[in-house]
Amino acid sequence: MPTTRQVSLASRPETAVLPENFMMLDAATPPLGDGDVLVRHIYMSVDPYMRGLMNDGGVAYAAGFEIGKPLFGRVIGEVAESRNADFREGDFVYGMLDWAEWSVAKGGESLRRVDPALAPLSYFLGTLGFPGLTAYVGMMLIGKPKEGETVYVSAASGAVGQVAGQLARIAGARVVGSAGSDEKVRFITGECGFHDGFNYRIAPTVLEALRLHCSDGIDVIFENVGGENLDAVLAHANPFARIAVCGMISQYNLAEPYHLRHVKEVVSKRLNMQGFVVRDHAHLIEQFIEETAGHIADGRMAVAEDVMNGLDNAPAAFIGMLAGENFGKRVIQVGQDPNAF
Amino acid sequence: MPTTRQVSLASRPETAVLPENFMMLDAATPPLGDGDVLVRHIYMSVDPYMRGLMNDGGVAYAAGFEIGKPLFGRVIGEVAESRNADFREGDFVYGMLDWAEWSVAKGGESLRRVDPALAPLSYFLGTLGFPGLTAYVGMMLIGKPKEGETVYVSAASGAVGQVAGQLARIAGARVVGSAGSDEKVRFITGECGFHDGFNYRIAPTVLEALRLHCSDGIDVIFENVGGENLDAVLAHANPFARIAVCGMISQYNLAEPYHLRHVKEVVSKRLNMQGFVVRDHAHLIEQFIEETAGHIADGRMAVAEDVMNGLDNAPAAFIGMLAGENFGKRVIQVGQDPNAF
Repeated sequence: MPTTRQVSLASRPETAVLPENFMMLDAATPPLGDGDVLVRHIYMSVDPYMRGLMNDGGVAYAAGFEIGKPLFGRVIGEVAESRNADFREGDFVYGMLDWAEWSVAKGGESLRRVDPALAPLSYFLGTLGFPGLTAYVGMMLIGKPKEGETVYVSAASGAVGQVAGQLARIAGARVVGSAGSDEKVRFITGECGFHDGFNYRIAPTVLEALRLHCSDGIDVIFENVGGENLDAVLAHANPFARIAVCGMISQYNLAEPYHLRHVKEVVSKRLNMQGFVVRDHAHLIEQFIEETAGHIADGRMAVAEDVMNGLDNAPAAFIGMLAGENFGKRVIQVGQDPNAF
Repeated sequence: MPTTRQVSLASRPETAVLPENFMMLDAATPPLGDGDVLVRHIYMSVDPYMRGLMNDGGVAYAAGFEIGKPLFGRVIGEVAESRNADFREGDFVYGMLDWAEWSVAKGGESLRRVDPALAPLSYFLGTLGFPGLTAYVGMMLIGKPKEGETVYVSAASGAVGQVAGQLARIAGARVVGSAGSDEKVRFITGECGFHDGFNYRIAPTVLEALRLHCSDGIDVIFENVGGENLDAVLAHANPFARIAVCGMISQYNLAEPYHLRHVKEVVSKRLNMQGFVVRDHAHLIEQFIEETAGHIADGRMAVAEDVMNGLDNAPAAFIGMLAGENFGKRVIQVGQDPNAF
């Protein structure tokens, strides 16, 4: 069995995540028992939700990382050896696996096969993975944009936001996004086909930017940010607007949350605010992949990826992603991809 | 044509409503044209939403009162003279009419007949009127309590809250209410059959009271109050809870709204918050009256009314209702009720 490099949790962050919260080590992969699958990792995902898993106790809906053990996340790999009838050597698979170069999926748990003919393998961690499904659930099952309505997406160039906005555009809505640099705004209004966008870091206030860029108000909001962004959304929403609340990344590290001033608009505007967590909708993934791979193949959906190389760079890549330095879905390539162009 | 006493708007309140904002006067009722109906008023309604109509410009969903003109609201009366084929002398009617003893409904506009055999006439302003329909929309169309779930109703002895809680009890839920006096709590846990209740004025905090009285969390919330009450609800709600937001009466006169701390629970608990305004559902009123009159007749629904006498007392009755001094639905009797027991 191969020896593998792994990233373990050395300590829990106080507020900001630091390099010393991680520890690199080399470990033997265990021998295969009946039903087990040895996976050679190719790509692994780093995502904002992992910040919550670093806290003691994890989050309300998932167990967290344990000190001294490898972190885990979504991985695309190749089956190197299988004692499981559902998987054969050479299959490409998706699974919830360690931050490592190799791992053993006990009983094949969490694995499913992915089809490398559908799209580049790394896309199954982003646009064709749970970030994409998150966008689909929030936009299509909760927001339900109608032709001609105005849709606003925050964190719009990120893994989730870029898909959310493009799904709304495909549905016939007018889509406006906000992002943290002029380059990101050019990406969403260019390749992604958003109708308008703004750089929230240089806007006077989010509310003033919304008044300028969404002059007919907002009918559907895909909310990733919380705080001032959510308050501006409440103030500028149209009657009967739907607010799909995917996350409030601006609020997670604050001792005192932002003071919302416009909550009472919920009544007079008859707003609907719905929080959601993608794992409740995991059963939709195959149908979602099929539909969305069609959008990509037909040129209706652009994909921005931010691929970094080497498992040893994973902690820095994760820390940088939390600060917004990535451009599109950040993935780490940890092994050779035989399907790469 | 009879001369009528009227209550007009003398000035707009700055914050609190004062007696000098009103003016009593006597006016002639105009002669009847084709289609017009002369109504002798019996009961009129004073409701919290009228506070918003006193402001310049009214509210987002309705035009306001005008200075120098009579206030208006929901009235039950008797047809004294009719030049309209749909209404005959002696019919009992419901309409949006002046704060007055007599009025002419031009073309019969806003009038519909009510059946005095179904229930006492004044009930058509409360449990069988728009307050009752408000409770029905929030509880049954938005909250949708299931058997065994826990439902929390704020302002629970009021015109809306008492119906909301009883509808949830009839649906098989465990119902907990809060109100502003021990006597009101005795009413909801006694005649109304709520399973538990608390006096929020003597509870240490709303959150501590909810932990004590809703030990299994809360699945459905009928929110009338906002502010600290809403924050406690967000903190103590169960995953997938539904929050029907009817009003935020605690927030309307504040320059700086309450600082909500628990909004981020919307995501991890997958909460649904839905604001609503009853006038969007006015078409349901006849079906609602039929169903609810059955509940009253069969003893499944109790009614608390707070009837004051005399049009001249209407301003004081309205001001007192805004301060919570009423016990149950406050109505003003302005004329003789031939159906009274």
